[in-house]
Amino acid sequence: MAVPPSTYPRRLLPLFLGLFQAALLLFFALFVTYDEPSAQAEDTSLVANQVYSTFPFFQDIQVMLVVGLGLLLTFLPRYGFSSLTHNFLLLNFSMQWALVLQGLLHHFHHGQIHLDLHKLLISEFAAVTVLISVGAILGRASPCQLLVMATCEIPIYLASEWVIVTCLGVLDVGGTITIHIFSCYFGLGVSKALFRATQQPLHPKESPTPSSDLMSLVGTLILWVFWPSFVAVLCQPGDAQHRAILNTLLAMSASAITTVVASSLLERDGKLSPGHLQNGSLAGGVAIGVVADMAMPPVAALALGSLSAVLCVLGFRFLTPLLGRKLTLHDQCGIHNLHGLPGILGAAASVVAVLVASKDTSGSRPSELAPVGGNASRVAEGHWGGRGAGGQALCQAAGLAVALGASLLAGLVTGAALRLPCLARPPERLCFDDSLYFKIQDEAESPGPDGSAEEGALALKERV
Amino acid sequence: MAVPPSTYPRRLLPLFLGLFQAALLLFFALFVTYDEPSAQAEDTSLVANQVYSTFPFFQDIQVMLVVGLGLLLTFLPRYGFSSLTHNFLLLNFSMQWALVLQGLLHHFHHGQIHLDLHKLLISEFAAVTVLISVGAILGRASPCQLLVMATCEIPIYLASEWVIVTCLGVLDVGGTITIHIFSCYFGLGVSKALFRATQQPLHPKESPTPSSDLMSLVGTLILWVFWPSFVAVLCQPGDAQHRAILNTLLAMSASAITTVVASSLLERDGKLSPGHLQNGSLAGGVAIGVVADMAMPPVAALALGSLSAVLCVLGFRFLTPLLGRKLTLHDQCGIHNLHGLPGILGAAASVVAVLVASKDTSGSRPSELAPVGGNASRVAEGHWGGRGAGGQALCQAAGLAVALGASLLAGLVTGAALRLPCLARPPERLCFDDSLYFKIQDEAESPGPDGSAEEGALALKERV
Amino acid sequence: MAVPPSTYPRRLLPLFLGLFQAALLLFFALFVTYDEPSAQAEDTSLVANQVYSTFPFFQDIQVMLVVGLGLLLTFLPRYGFSSLTHNFLLLNFSMQWALVLQGLLHHFHHGQIHLDLHKLLISEFAAVTVLISVGAILGRASPCQLLVMATCEIPIYLASEWVIVTCLGVLDVGGTITIHIFSCYFGLGVSKALFRATQQPLHPKESPTPSSDLMSLVGTLILWVFWPSFVAVLCQPGDAQHRAILNTLLAMSASAITTVVASSLLERDGKLSPGHLQNGSLAGGVAIGVVADMAMPPVAALALGSLSAVLCVLGFRFLTPLLGRKLTLHDQCGIHNLHGLPGILGAAASVVAVLVASKDTSGSRPSELAPVGGNASRVAEGHWGGRGAGGQALCQAAGLAVALGASLLAGLVTGAALRLPCLARPPERLCFDDSLYFKIQDEAESPGPDGSAEEGALALKERV
Repeated sequence: MAVPPSTYPRRLLPLFLGLFQAALLLFFALFVTYDEPSAQAEDTSLVANQVYSTFPFFQDIQVMLVVGLGLLLTFLPRYGFSSLTHNFLLLNFSMQWALVLQGLLHHFHHGQIHLDLHKLLISEFAAVTVLISVGAILGRASPCQLLVMATCEIPIYLASEWVIVTCLGVLDVGGTITIHIFSCYFGLGVSKALFRATQQPLHPKESPTPSSDLMSLVGTLILWVFWPSFVAVLCQPGDAQHRAILNTLLAMSASAITTVVASSLLERDGKLSPGHLQNGSLAGGVAIGVVADMAMPPVAALALGSLSAVLCVLGFRFLTPLLGRKLTLHDQCGIHNLHGLPGILGAAASVVAVLVASKDTSGSRPSELAPVGGNASRVAEGHWGGRGAGGQALCQAAGLAVALGASLLAGLVTGAALRLPCLARPPERLCFDDSLYFKIQDEAESPGPDGSAEEGALALKERV
Repeated sequence: MAVPPSTYPRRLLPLFLGLFQAALLLFFALFVTYDEPSAQAEDTSLVANQVYSTFPFFQDIQVMLVVGLGLLLTFLPRYGFSSLTHNFLLLNFSMQWALVLQGLLHHFHHGQIHLDLHKLLISEFAAVTVLISVGAILGRASPCQLLVMATCEIPIYLASEWVIVTCLGVLDVGGTITIHIFSCYFGLGVSKALFRATQQPLHPKESPTPSSDLMSLVGTLILWVFWPSFVAVLCQPGDAQHRAILNTLLAMSASAITTVVASSLLERDGKLSPGHLQNGSLAGGVAIGVVADMAMPPVAALALGSLSAVLCVLGFRFLTPLLGRKLTLHDQCGIHNLHGLPGILGAAASVVAVLVASKDTSGSRPSELAPVGGNASRVAEGHWGGRGAGGQALCQAAGLAVALGASLLAGLVTGAALRLPCLARPPERLCFDDSLYFKIQDEAESPGPDGSAEEGALALKERV
Repeated sequence: MAVPPSTYPRRLLPLFLGLFQAALLLFFALFVTYDEPSAQAEDTSLVANQVYSTFPFFQDIQVMLVVGLGLLLTFLPRYGFSSLTHNFLLLNFSMQWALVLQGLLHHFHHGQIHLDLHKLLISEFAAVTVLISVGAILGRASPCQLLVMATCEIPIYLASEWVIVTCLGVLDVGGTITIHIFSCYFGLGVSKALFRATQQPLHPKESPTPSSDLMSLVGTLILWVFWPSFVAVLCQPGDAQHRAILNTLLAMSASAITTVVASSLLERDGKLSPGHLQNGSLAGGVAIGVVADMAMPPVAALALGSLSAVLCVLGFRFLTPLLGRKLTLHDQCGIHNLHGLPGILGAAASVVAVLVASKDTSGSRPSELAPVGGNASRVAEGHWGGRGAGGQALCQAAGLAVALGASLLAGLVTGAALRLPCLARPPERLCFDDSLYFKIQDEAESPGPDGSAEEGALALKERV
């Protein structure tokens, strides 16, 4: 399957992307328009207010995805440029692809799709799933494979999200079930099917260096700071959004501290592991998403943040090596520890939160949870009122099951498709190396003892 | 002209800057005040709303200019500190200088200039021109030369902007013509006159390293994320601003993907060039500025983004080397490819957009484009209504011509002035090196085989 | 006192943090709730507006503290990971600790504390003091020592802030006196008592490298960009906030330019010192905080920015070495130059501003300064109206004295407590080194001549 480097095929990527971009242009030309400009002053002010209330959140999320997530992935010391670029490319590709599919599925009226900021935001959320799933196979998959994966994942995500949110009425304002759990198990499925039973040996270029670890931590910190915007952007303005922000802040703060505790206790010499910090600090944000806007006491957010950080660190320490040995399951970035385990914890918490909340507010305000937790655009209103707390709790559990099952299955099928020889999986010895994809001077900084004599002389001259 | 390093003159910079700062203090003491505090509650609420609607955009733009653009320029591996610092210094200097000049020209009433956030923003826009122009001569010019260039460029920009926007009534909400085209050709003019017919040989310190390329890409991504704020900040709130944001997002997304396609197809071995990615991804933002708030279909934004990325990559691949050979024109950062070519494309698109829009809305809403595309503060209202689509299209073309001509001419004159010996152009062998301007330990990280024995021993000791 | 590395105790940190986190959970479970959801539509809209007006500022401040300040501290080349992580950990710990204490002191009603975004913000401000104080002993103190310091500093800060703002009615919207001066002298006190009379020799790992200096400068630029949000977030919306933003922008811009002038004039060879730039550019922000929202002409902000930059650079050049020699006072990051001297300048300026403002507005609007400069949540209203300009000026001076005295005294006591052997101060030769606390591959990037033969071969192989 692996291709020799000299004959590594390079025309597929531009061909694929070029055709896609041309098709997108055609699609936009035929079907996509903007809303008519509002005729009246009141409408103008309404639009302006919508822009002011959504756009800052949108920008925060863009920073998270483009800069934060990109930098987080640069922990591979010679693959930083690829990580950043592939992340950036996949975000744009997936967002455009989701825009097309969502337009066709949900917003196709009289042959036209009216584009607005909210629809772009929803497409961006869809693209997040791809960026997460990539983490499982980062460094060992070609850009073409990643693009094909994105092509498959987006429609499956949209279908799964439709079943979970619209049909089942699952409350999940921060995308814990629909985005994090889905993308994690999709990515693991892909990894399993792509690498099959061959256990991946430790590649010499896989180990982070101090400077790549530092860049990655900066990425974590950027994600950490802006995470509340990600969780709260789709909340109802007012109390629900306020509470979602507070819960997320509390959960992330607890995660940060608990990660240090857990990592320090688990390592034999008491030293902290950079990987734990880079991921554990964010675990609380994953778990809190599904309950962030529900009526629960602040201590629940703290507890959820702490627990998810513990789970994440335990996962890195024990589960990932175990899965590698027993199931030959390869998970490059540990997405199962950051997105899978905390996501499942969050989903379980949402079941409890729904049951507890209904007791607290029994009688007096039976429908409190619905308008608060409900997102007008994502939750069919009234469901929760009609079905009672037990029913809603069941739905949350069903949503988790659907996300898990659908993503694993679809991931396995997609991963099998990625084995097609034409998709040019890089040969093992060229993995984790920018120089396969980019015209980058390899190690120009320190030609060192292995450089040719000429290069050494040049470098010497340069330094004088 | 070049000066030996030991006698490199270093007192001019603090002298120049110190005098400027003292003069600024005097000017502010004599003429600049704040608005009187509003007496009534309604006014207070109005001011608060203005702050909330402008300040987030303003901060986004500051991040772009100070962090994003600064990092983009750090692709020169030993000149990163200089790039960041000079960019930062020039931004502050040019902004203050523009504040003074704009105050004198436009806002001088009864011997007083009332300062507000909007005026600071406008001055910041003026400063952007300097930061772009610098790209043409980055690394080979001294800070004094750059400051003199800024001193000349700001008044010429203000004059040119006044002619283009106020006199000609050109619609250019994102500054494509007034900022990008102007600053590009000004910078090229300076470069031509400064370096004359001597072709600049490739300097050994000019080649990016993997880590400097990575930092530069991070800068690109920051610029990419916040670009919509730059384009939309001066739009009319409401539909026009909403559309400007959407158009910019679409154009930048198309640019990102098309850059990969174009770069991959153009390079013989199919590898992507970091320089293409760092610049091409932003080309759509340059081109869309002039039409961002006009009434055009979304597909136009996508097409503009794709086309400008293709132009940018083609420019890097063919035009820059050609201009270097034929005209001995030196363009260090390739500003002609990022700002010049996409800018001209955008200006041409604005001509088409004006003509097409008038047909679409013939009769029913003849003045739609004006209030939508018009920026109260920058466009004389009514012009477009009065002059018809053909007239407006002509004006757009005339604006392009004025920007091109004025900037090239002024740049050539300014560049000639920069050849004054007292401005201390650095000697060629000290170019692209932080150590000429900063007390920075040169290559402390890896003393390597060329370090003195003593240094090597110290480094050895340090590592143990 | 210093412990041999093999027996360096590592269980204290997780124990301390783990117990704290458990206690926090208990405290939250017993006492902390959210506000009841607002029942009426008007209230919902009110809450939404509060979120939209505070949250963007809050996020800006988070970026400053987590990313900006963290990166600023990475100038120690082998201590970058520790600097970032300890800064992040201390922020979260101190914020939670301040939340508890503030809740108990100020917001404890009927056995409950109602949490909202504003209270989190106030706690974040308290945490800033710890992050600043750390600068004095960065690299030579263990995480346990830093946590104990934070544990002591937060309650003392809250007491001092209560005396200064609530009792004395000091106007200090940007925290110049209450935060910057307090934390600076607290940190210096800790440093003095911790290191006593032993002058700290220059550690070989203390010298910045080009790349660590670059990262640190990026941190400075991030802080520089978002500083106006820090100063203005607690201002009255409307004119006062608008003016605070403008004053901060002007002061920081003047600081940036003046730093270059001062640094260039003071260094014998005219080269700029990276440390001056990294700190001096921010000095104006420290000084302006206390007067940012007062009624003063724009020139005052410029002058304050310039002067504080000069003070900061002079401090680095002369005062820090002097204090080191004469008082054996160790100040690793030069916090006295960035926070101490500009802070005192700002406090002095506030005395002048109060006196001058009262003359300007004599009779006609005697109470202008109070509602403008007064922060509803931090300043007891009416004080200034009742006590007259002279009284208010005295109060400002008294506030400065209280901040100075309390912080120095408390710092000395705290520093003495940090000498407890159980707190595991790292041995001198392991200072400034990430590898004491983190599982980080030391210098994997360039094994160099001192690496073992095996490592060299591996590295060679890896590069081929």
